[in-house]
Amino acid sequence: MDANRLTVESAMRRALDLAARGPVHGPNPQVGCVLLAPSVREDDVRAVLAEGWHRGAGTAHAEVDALAQAAKRGVDVRGATAVVSLEPCNHVGRTGPCSVALVAASVVQVVYAVADPNPSAAGGAEHLRAHGVAVRGGLLADEGEELLRIWLTSARRGTPYVTLKTATSLDGCVAAADGSSRWITGSAAREHAHEVRAGIDAIAVGTGTLLADDPSLTARTPHGALAVHQPLRVVVGEREIPTGARIHGPGGEVVHVRSRDIHDVLAVLGARDVRHLLVEGGPALATAFLRAGAVDELHSYVAPMLVGSGRRAVTDLGGRSLDDALRFRTVHTRQLGDDVLVVSRAHPAGAVVDRAKES
Amino acid sequence: MDANRLTVESAMRRALDLAARGPVHGPNPQVGCVLLAPSVREDDVRAVLAEGWHRGAGTAHAEVDALAQAAKRGVDVRGATAVVSLEPCNHVGRTGPCSVALVAASVVQVVYAVADPNPSAAGGAEHLRAHGVAVRGGLLADEGEELLRIWLTSARRGTPYVTLKTATSLDGCVAAADGSSRWITGSAAREHAHEVRAGIDAIAVGTGTLLADDPSLTARTPHGALAVHQPLRVVVGEREIPTGARIHGPGGEVVHVRSRDIHDVLAVLGARDVRHLLVEGGPALATAFLRAGAVDELHSYVAPMLVGSGRRAVTDLGGRSLDDALRFRTVHTRQLGDDVLVVSRAHPAGAVVDRAKES
Repeated sequence: MDANRLTVESAMRRALDLAARGPVHGPNPQVGCVLLAPSVREDDVRAVLAEGWHRGAGTAHAEVDALAQAAKRGVDVRGATAVVSLEPCNHVGRTGPCSVALVAASVVQVVYAVADPNPSAAGGAEHLRAHGVAVRGGLLADEGEELLRIWLTSARRGTPYVTLKTATSLDGCVAAADGSSRWITGSAAREHAHEVRAGIDAIAVGTGTLLADDPSLTARTPHGALAVHQPLRVVVGEREIPTGARIHGPGGEVVHVRSRDIHDVLAVLGARDVRHLLVEGGPALATAFLRAGAVDELHSYVAPMLVGSGRRAVTDLGGRSLDDALRFRTVHTRQLGDDVLVVSRAHPAGAVVDRAKES
Repeated sequence: MDANRLTVESAMRRALDLAARGPVHGPNPQVGCVLLAPSVREDDVRAVLAEGWHRGAGTAHAEVDALAQAAKRGVDVRGATAVVSLEPCNHVGRTGPCSVALVAASVVQVVYAVADPNPSAAGGAEHLRAHGVAVRGGLLADEGEELLRIWLTSARRGTPYVTLKTATSLDGCVAAADGSSRWITGSAAREHAHEVRAGIDAIAVGTGTLLADDPSLTARTPHGALAVHQPLRVVVGEREIPTGARIHGPGGEVVHVRSRDIHDVLAVLGARDVRHLLVEGGPALATAFLRAGAVDELHSYVAPMLVGSGRRAVTDLGGRSLDDALRFRTVHTRQLGDDVLVVSRAHPAGAVVDRAKES
């Protein structure tokens, strides 16, 4: 790998690939770093001195990881260029500031894709410039934004990125009239939903769903074992959680937010560094998040089934006309067994597309 | 093409491809025919003498077309094998019986994929055998059944194959609370729906939709021009069609079935040789077809939109529990712009899958 020779731009693509190796959950962003040999001209193809990426909270940041890799193998990084997917941080957290480490290692140039919006971490570029390092931001910024979309949205806003998951029939039902809901989607869709759970920070249900369905709210493998990462389990509403509820079994920590105000829920979770919240139901909670304009993304699993007079995924969104409907833009669709998953996003995050004007 | 040399099985694949060139609408099936040179062993590779396919009602059947092609070029077909996707017909319609033509041409062997279920046309194999022709049916029968699925279902049952089309939001709405419904799906989905209309025999709406939306019920090209083939326009229900309704404009013939009984509708259309009926709405008509167990296929266009308290694609299907839901099996899904099309079928045609038992 270190035998590779790359331009700064191809090193940035590599840094983005390295970043994606890091965990998608947790308070920290996915970051990758490539150290390139010194060069007179920036667009030269240069030797890769070392690579690094961030493996999650409590471990080395990508830049420090790359510097450590170089030191371990006795590679001289003086005069090098650090190509990083995110602006190097300037804060003293569980690890030292990356900006300081880069200066100490005599790196002379830093190129990053996306600026760090985190007030406690920003200022890395400034610190580097003050110490004579040439800094350039915005290289492959769109790709960087896409990779870090969830983390950036959450960091900029101070509240979690919210994904609303529904599993409905083609006529929008999440359950039949008698409340029966097992199963609308098939096993492939349910396995996929568990994979998603294993990559998010928190999962929320309302007290109504908790009392009716007694869910575990765990992330499980296809064989039924607990996944390595378990999301925080969030119950929203004023009613008590029964002591014998399954949610108290093995899995993530349980947080009960005794409020029906979605902004309270988001504030509580934001303060706990929750970056990605998955709202799973029921319809009352889903509707509350939608009415609060708090849904960034929809994961809509749709099964080839018609229920008729069943319970709906969402109830009254407050509109009368089609102009009032909440419109999203589709990112991708995927067939999962007999079901289809539609992933769509508000555009921009937190707002909705007005497609009525298209026609 | 005639330079090709094929085995009987590859000639059948060719015959199926030729069949697919014929029109998908109309009372007659799509049929293809390949005439192979005489051979002692059936599995030999043999010269293709001629090919033919059926171009729609009033034109030559595939076998007669192939024989005509051979005659036109002076090719001797005595002793040949006719490979046909459907059992040669035995009835005197607008064209003579194919079985008689094959015997007259001294064809000595006929291989077909699917038997003709049409009582007025069947008996071709019998006639051929009675005249010394070796006959074998069932070669690539599954492929033949799939190609002729709509026609075969209709011919066996005597009523049209019914496709129910819906265009809904992710929460199953076809319109907002105030009735506004333009547009839920985007232009790509609407163009696709017009392509489908151009390939079916009849399109049905209820009087409620007719009075509320005043639809034209025409098949149009993306540029807005009328497509070459226009489906029969069927209005179901007891209320009168206003004299000034758009449905009286250019397009297919208008048929008013003054009944709410779906079996009456199917009988009327079956008697008119309608093979494929597209039910477009509204919700009352869709629900009536579903409750009658008369829907063979669903074309569900789903838009990334949430309406909330809108009008539903289907209303009361009569069930209370999820076990009563109508389940279909997905044939394919396709993203069309921001929307997704889910094509699913009852299994077998006219019945529904009980997927509840899977889990």
